[in-house]
Amino acid sequence: MPKTFTLNEIVRHLGGELLGDPKVRIRQVAPLQTAIAGEISFLAQQRYIEQLQSTHASAVILGKGAQDATTLPRIVCDNPYAYYAGVVGLLNPPFKPDPGIHRSAVVADGAHIAQSSSVGPSAVIEAGASIGENCVIGAGSYVGRDTVIGSGTELHANVTIYHGCRIGDRCTVHSGAVIGADGFGNAKDGDVWRKIPQIGGVVIGDDVEIGANTTIDRGALDDTTIGNGVKLDNQIQIAHNVTVGDNTAIAACAGIAGSAKIGKNCTLGGASMIYGHISIADNINVSAGTLIMKSLDEPGGYTGVYPFASHQRWLKTASHLRQLDDLFKRVRVLESNKDKNGNQTS
Amino acid sequence: MPKTFTLNEIVRHLGGELLGDPKVRIRQVAPLQTAIAGEISFLAQQRYIEQLQSTHASAVILGKGAQDATTLPRIVCDNPYAYYAGVVGLLNPPFKPDPGIHRSAVVADGAHIAQSSSVGPSAVIEAGASIGENCVIGAGSYVGRDTVIGSGTELHANVTIYHGCRIGDRCTVHSGAVIGADGFGNAKDGDVWRKIPQIGGVVIGDDVEIGANTTIDRGALDDTTIGNGVKLDNQIQIAHNVTVGDNTAIAACAGIAGSAKIGKNCTLGGASMIYGHISIADNINVSAGTLIMKSLDEPGGYTGVYPFASHQRWLKTASHLRQLDDLFKRVRVLESNKDKNGNQTS
Amino acid sequence: MPKTFTLNEIVRHLGGELLGDPKVRIRQVAPLQTAIAGEISFLAQQRYIEQLQSTHASAVILGKGAQDATTLPRIVCDNPYAYYAGVVGLLNPPFKPDPGIHRSAVVADGAHIAQSSSVGPSAVIEAGASIGENCVIGAGSYVGRDTVIGSGTELHANVTIYHGCRIGDRCTVHSGAVIGADGFGNAKDGDVWRKIPQIGGVVIGDDVEIGANTTIDRGALDDTTIGNGVKLDNQIQIAHNVTVGDNTAIAACAGIAGSAKIGKNCTLGGASMIYGHISIADNINVSAGTLIMKSLDEPGGYTGVYPFASHQRWLKTASHLRQLDDLFKRVRVLESNKDKNGNQTS
Repeated sequence: MPKTFTLNEIVRHLGGELLGDPKVRIRQVAPLQTAIAGEISFLAQQRYIEQLQSTHASAVILGKGAQDATTLPRIVCDNPYAYYAGVVGLLNPPFKPDPGIHRSAVVADGAHIAQSSSVGPSAVIEAGASIGENCVIGAGSYVGRDTVIGSGTELHANVTIYHGCRIGDRCTVHSGAVIGADGFGNAKDGDVWRKIPQIGGVVIGDDVEIGANTTIDRGALDDTTIGNGVKLDNQIQIAHNVTVGDNTAIAACAGIAGSAKIGKNCTLGGASMIYGHISIADNINVSAGTLIMKSLDEPGGYTGVYPFASHQRWLKTASHLRQLDDLFKRVRVLESNKDKNGNQTS
Repeated sequence: MPKTFTLNEIVRHLGGELLGDPKVRIRQVAPLQTAIAGEISFLAQQRYIEQLQSTHASAVILGKGAQDATTLPRIVCDNPYAYYAGVVGLLNPPFKPDPGIHRSAVVADGAHIAQSSSVGPSAVIEAGASIGENCVIGAGSYVGRDTVIGSGTELHANVTIYHGCRIGDRCTVHSGAVIGADGFGNAKDGDVWRKIPQIGGVVIGDDVEIGANTTIDRGALDDTTIGNGVKLDNQIQIAHNVTVGDNTAIAACAGIAGSAKIGKNCTLGGASMIYGHISIADNINVSAGTLIMKSLDEPGGYTGVYPFASHQRWLKTASHLRQLDDLFKRVRVLESNKDKNGNQTS
Repeated sequence: MPKTFTLNEIVRHLGGELLGDPKVRIRQVAPLQTAIAGEISFLAQQRYIEQLQSTHASAVILGKGAQDATTLPRIVCDNPYAYYAGVVGLLNPPFKPDPGIHRSAVVADGAHIAQSSSVGPSAVIEAGASIGENCVIGAGSYVGRDTVIGSGTELHANVTIYHGCRIGDRCTVHSGAVIGADGFGNAKDGDVWRKIPQIGGVVIGDDVEIGANTTIDRGALDDTTIGNGVKLDNQIQIAHNVTVGDNTAIAACAGIAGSAKIGKNCTLGGASMIYGHISIADNINVSAGTLIMKSLDEPGGYTGVYPFASHQRWLKTASHLRQLDDLFKRVRVLESNKDKNGNQTS
């Protein structure tokens, strides 16, 4: 049975100002367009305001400017989107397995696991590893030698963390993520590559979320470090010795090459790529699909994407792009002829 | 021992018109250039037609237009490439483990597994999950609480499916795929991100193939949905609340951002990227490496790729591209000077 | 306790010329800027030469040209970067688990595992598989039927190798890598896709490193092949029937489409993409983020990346790029008007 809350109870938990019947009982959260009786909805962007007229929600969450836009029972708050996140969490508390180590898990001698934590079926914890209080180690997950995991952290099923890494408190790591694999370090020696052993680790702060199949490599000599509150989507690649600053959020399929430094409060769009050995300042937003090749000092948005077109039109534009050098030369000729003829150029 | 078939038996199973000796025995399928005696080959594209003269295959599969292009024993059919697929399947029936639950698998109380299905070593099936008839759950795979898997579906080794998802009949999911991880939903609250619990699921139709290390996130409030007959290659990222229409095929490394709607019978090329909250109509083909930022209503092909060149030449073109605004201004000046001098512009 | 070596011992193991006190004892390797007493550092690039003056390292590794740039105890050699790799390896020998099969591993009857090899917890080795001498099969890893692994090869935790593949000697495969999943082969049959069973395998040479979550698909009819000494970073996708030549190195997030042939001694940058059915000659360097659509015969560097800019500036340039066809026409008009007016074009 999912829990239900009255509007009054919701406001008692999460704050905000309640307008309308405090006894309305809420069962779930839903978008304005699909909400039904017993559900609460929210208005986070002005452009959806007309949906308030037609919604079947029993109540809505609104910003202060929109509090008169409906007569429905409503919660008025500063940040309706964050409030909505809170209500979803209140109504849908996360599933938590009972503490304890599953009989099929393999915990090496000398590993420490807090009594309040759970280790799922077929999970493996190597010697010297330490799992803090209230952690969940998912089925099939692997925690390498001497790796330390803080309290309240969850590894979903089939996560891999190599030896000698540190994960903070209240982190969530999704399935298939790999933390601490060797950085890609090879020295050319004649025709062959000599592997450079990667002896650094990975240090991850508190309140970090790491998406499915994301990879974070261990450092060559020093550590790879991920700050507090960083949010990483799926299939992100973070190379050795990268630093990611606090509260930076990175969308899926992005890649950060070795030793790059990403500042705080940045956003990197999906499939964006950052060169190695460069620095991205705080408060920088890189658009999806953009490759950043040079350090960025100025906050703001940066983009580098070839604008798509119909294939036929692209063929023509791409061909012109290849002739751009020629075009510059032709314009120069036109300009110099003009000069010779006594015409003025502005 | 692999099975062998005479041409007559093949035609009896798969149809088509047989020309030449029906008793020729076929052991395997091979390309025209490398086929040897006992093997059948196929001509699916006109440009390989001269290879018919030199092939050592014992028989060939041809379209109707090419039926006189060789005197070899041959099967004439409407779609030689699809026919070839059928013959490969006939000669190479998939390996199927015996039904039953491996002693090292962990099946929670209250999970339902059909007797005809098999659960491999170290696999984990959580409470409330249901596995239909004739399924194969690979070694180390994980099926979360209350997830329902149809009949005839195979999860290869080390697949992860979170709780509350639905997978249809006759699907194939390759190793490392993760279905149902949390969508990337965070609400900014001052400097920090508040996680938006993802309470939707993932619903996958029938006859879907999902490649290795592909990730499909669960919905925020509603479900992420993948239609019937969809084919997904490796390392694809499908974000929360995406819809993919029936029979759409997506090549490796593509990404689809949150709430995008992809139509039916589309193809998305490798490493193509689709913005969130846009709609792609049916029958659209997106080229490899292309980022689509706006909804597409018209069927057809779309491309947006920077044409590569030698690095030296690229340096020059890229530099010109940055000066394009200036070039437009210079041409405008030339045009206006011309106007002032009484010249006509077309 | 980590091992320590005197400079004299290091030179005895790895060669090079020692200048200064041979008894200086070295505990670890560190960058010039952060090294402390007891550590050795290295100068691999001329641009860091001034750091020699301020380093606190107890010794340094230098090339012949720089041997007089410091009075610190130093090892002079031809290739300081490769030498550094050797010293790191000497001081940090890899951890090797004891030989033997963990009680929780599942080894099928008819699998062969050399006595000197180890099979970790919850690993699964299927029938007919063969594991050579001194291998390490990590926890939760899966080796399919009839797959053959050479000697001295390590699979880290949670690696998946399908049936019928061959991995050479001294390879390293990182967690989450999937080798031998089905290639993406589908034949259109009306509206639906017919799967083309993938009956080739994957053949991987000696001394190959395969990064975390990298995928290498099995061939359709023939094998996918990776040469000796190839180095693959994380999250690379290699499609069916690709060939990668010896000593080629590929950075993270790159993708190679079906049947492409990559030569020897190439480098492919991060997130570069190679079309299917094309050939890349030996000694070619593809830049990060570049999509190669045509075969390349000439050695050298190739690039195709849209140069990023501030978002505002990009909006303008991208808009101009779309108008490029028009600009070419306008320049042509200017040129022809000029001709008509008797002006000379160079």
